[in-house]
Amino acid sequence: MRQLFQQELADLKDDLVDIAQSVEGAMDRAVRAFNQSDVQLAEEVIAQDHLIDDAVRELDEQAIAILARQAPVAGDLRQVISTLRISASLERMGDLASHLAQLARYRFPEKVAPKGIRPTFKEMGALDLKMAGLVVGLLQDPNTKTVDEIRDLDDSIDALHLSVFETVLSEEFGSGTATVVDATLASRYLERFADHGVSISKKVLYLLTGEWDPDSSE
Amino acid sequence: MRQLFQQELADLKDDLVDIAQSVEGAMDRAVRAFNQSDVQLAEEVIAQDHLIDDAVRELDEQAIAILARQAPVAGDLRQVISTLRISASLERMGDLASHLAQLARYRFPEKVAPKGIRPTFKEMGALDLKMAGLVVGLLQDPNTKTVDEIRDLDDSIDALHLSVFETVLSEEFGSGTATVVDATLASRYLERFADHGVSISKKVLYLLTGEWDPDSSE
Repeated sequence: MRQLFQQELADLKDDLVDIAQSVEGAMDRAVRAFNQSDVQLAEEVIAQDHLIDDAVRELDEQAIAILARQAPVAGDLRQVISTLRISASLERMGDLASHLAQLARYRFPEKVAPKGIRPTFKEMGALDLKMAGLVVGLLQDPNTKTVDEIRDLDDSIDALHLSVFETVLSEEFGSGTATVVDATLASRYLERFADHGVSISKKVLYLLTGEWDPDSSE
Repeated sequence: MRQLFQQELADLKDDLVDIAQSVEGAMDRAVRAFNQSDVQLAEEVIAQDHLIDDAVRELDEQAIAILARQAPVAGDLRQVISTLRISASLERMGDLASHLAQLARYRFPEKVAPKGIRPTFKEMGALDLKMAGLVVGLLQDPNTKTVDEIRDLDDSIDALHLSVFETVLSEEFGSGTATVVDATLASRYLERFADHGVSISKKVLYLLTGEWDPDSSE
């Protein structure tokens, strides 16, 4: 019984890592679709978002079943609760990858970002991918070092988010209104994606320390 | 023991309603700050957001303590799990009210929205407030009729969100880039606020029916 329970907890963890890897893959395709105006890649991300949603639903059901059958306490209980909260963040990260892909699809064959701001978006996209990779690593091997790295990375992404607004608002920008709307939304999606990485890292910290910190800083 | 447990569940529900009412109050002030460019009101919303965060943290701790001590099953377990998920949405709704207030504060003494689009934002704000009220009512008295009302209300808010973009992108709009950025963000915040109302209604539906539906439609 005890052994089965430990196996179920291990399965929860593996499933969470799998979902995080799917999110990483979706963001990788979304960022490329956005940067290169690749409509097929964009369609793929949008069409496959429901797979992440389905995996999250299954994982949640599994976690709730464990609560009902095993009535875990202490560290085991924390792990199951964290799983439920982390899966919600991963599901939202998948949505945000899909939103980014939708912008790419909507503007096709044009690129979403005008030339002057493309390097900034490229960097934001690359950092978001790094964030997704750190989240996968953190879920595989919970540790405070990666939690710190995630927080620092989020600071860099926030700084780029602000610089997008500075660029868009500068006189030299001179792009049309649609571009301003798109750039504002794209930057917001990329920034929120990273925020969820921070949320997840806080939940892992809860797992490590028992200190619960909801996302009060966002 | 059983009686104490039922009292604890009733307390969880009351606390959730209290937080929902705080969110409603925050959004009421944020919408007025935004519409009337009232910087004092905006400051209040921003300064008090941490009270909602604190209340959510306490509620979460309470819910987790109940899971550990009482090991609830079936409907009781569902209620505790729903509480954890609903509190997360309420916390985000508080953040979004604060974001809206920040836009108002940032543009003060100017109004955020230019004249042509003010009626649309007024309507969105009024509908978001209605959403907050429906959420309070639904948490007080879970029922499928309110779940349906919330879904319909969200459709109306989504339509207004689209109409903001149409207005902003129309040739007659003729406002500066900063205004376009602000209107895009404000509309997104108002739309997301309503999305969380739908999320909460889905979690209440889970409570009523046992069917779990993560936010796959967002």
